[in-house]
Amino acid sequence: MKTEVALRAEEAGEPDPEAVAVVVDVLRATTWVATALERGAWGVRPVPEVDEAFRLAAALREQGHAVLLAGERGGLPLPGFDLGNSPAELTQRDVAGRRLVLTTTNGTRALGQVASAGEVLVASLRNAGATALYLAAARRDVHVVCAGTRGRLSLEDVLAAGWLVRRLREACEGLDRSDGARVAEAVAAAWEGRELEALRAAEHGRRLLDLGFGADLEMAARKDAWDRPVRLEDGWLRPVGAGGTMPEVAGR
Amino acid sequence: MKTEVALRAEEAGEPDPEAVAVVVDVLRATTWVATALERGAWGVRPVPEVDEAFRLAAALREQGHAVLLAGERGGLPLPGFDLGNSPAELTQRDVAGRRLVLTTTNGTRALGQVASAGEVLVASLRNAGATALYLAAARRDVHVVCAGTRGRLSLEDVLAAGWLVRRLREACEGLDRSDGARVAEAVAAAWEGRELEALRAAEHGRRLLDLGFGADLEMAARKDAWDRPVRLEDGWLRPVGAGGTMPEVAGR
Repeated sequence: MKTEVALRAEEAGEPDPEAVAVVVDVLRATTWVATALERGAWGVRPVPEVDEAFRLAAALREQGHAVLLAGERGGLPLPGFDLGNSPAELTQRDVAGRRLVLTTTNGTRALGQVASAGEVLVASLRNAGATALYLAAARRDVHVVCAGTRGRLSLEDVLAAGWLVRRLREACEGLDRSDGARVAEAVAAAWEGRELEALRAAEHGRRLLDLGFGADLEMAARKDAWDRPVRLEDGWLRPVGAGGTMPEVAGR
Repeated sequence: MKTEVALRAEEAGEPDPEAVAVVVDVLRATTWVATALERGAWGVRPVPEVDEAFRLAAALREQGHAVLLAGERGGLPLPGFDLGNSPAELTQRDVAGRRLVLTTTNGTRALGQVASAGEVLVASLRNAGATALYLAAARRDVHVVCAGTRGRLSLEDVLAAGWLVRRLREACEGLDRSDGARVAEAVAAAWEGRELEALRAAEHGRRLLDLGFGADLEMAARKDAWDRPVRLEDGWLRPVGAGGTMPEVAGR
């Protein structure tokens, strides 16, 4: 059982169709997804483009679903959207049972990089431990992809990937780790117990602090706060084992 | 004073002409260079191609210089060459005063990536501390490039880059570190005092162990064994302050 970590989306290569890919975008897409699902959202639909997000939300509403439209460009909310991609903002809204359509830059690009994988999960520090337990049970090769920011490596993504590797190694004796996986695990070890400090020191974290999103960093730093892995199923991100039927909507 | 670390040569970008670039290729090019210069070689000339290496060696010999031709492809020595790129092998030869022509795959590619920098150094664990002290005195932005192996990140390069960042930070209060620099420093911290263990666990290290080059790993793991930085001067890698005149040979 091999574990590979790509420290930036651009170096992800093509995951093996037998492998499980895990996309990590701690600030803020995958933390936002975990927060939404933790709070009972039916599912999150990641889409790359803004106009696609509008079309999809309209189609879902026509089918009678309760929908919220969320996303950002350059870290800021979009005109006409219900929500940005701030996890803290999300806690002020009732999302239970709703379908959330999300468009973000780095997170969606990273999802595109792993389209060849047999199964795709998304993880953040909030559910890295739960994700590791799921992967340990699956006993398939693991291909973690850190989204990074605008083509640059992001400390917080490497940290979360490393925590996932660490928990996976604890669950699977003799886990085969790539150099990228070992680098990530070292980062998690170096900052263990100081995750919030790491996020505040990180380039992207500092930018978000400047924009007034400090509460998001606090939410993003909460390691293993939630006990569910999140999987991409017919285009929707949902907690594993969430049940229910998939909506019939055209497109991705 | 900013410090940036590219964890693979491919993500190096274009270093600022004002910056100092530092290329790291612990297994084995930059360890080999440090070993050769430590043992009194006049200088090391890195060249990308095998035929260029032959031509340059012939031209230097015609000028009356004592020359050794060194290099590898796929980790193995080349036919007609005097040496491979094994640092341990180098200690069996008298290199004092000689001009060494070296062709390697990853190390030379990484040097090509930083051609735009105002000054280029090469570092390994053997002289990372000395390199950091030189950089601290220079007070210019630092752009460290880990060579990696065949486009993949190499644990040992990240480790050495991290040790350099750590020593630089100790010498320069308030050093501005990129996320890549922080990742590298965390790797160095996680393996501190166990550098040889890290090299033995690394993908490239394991391959070299299989090929019988275990002694090279031991030499490569010796942190701060040598007190001189190495700089590229008119195409030659030489210890800083080595003095002497540059040979007149066409082309790099």
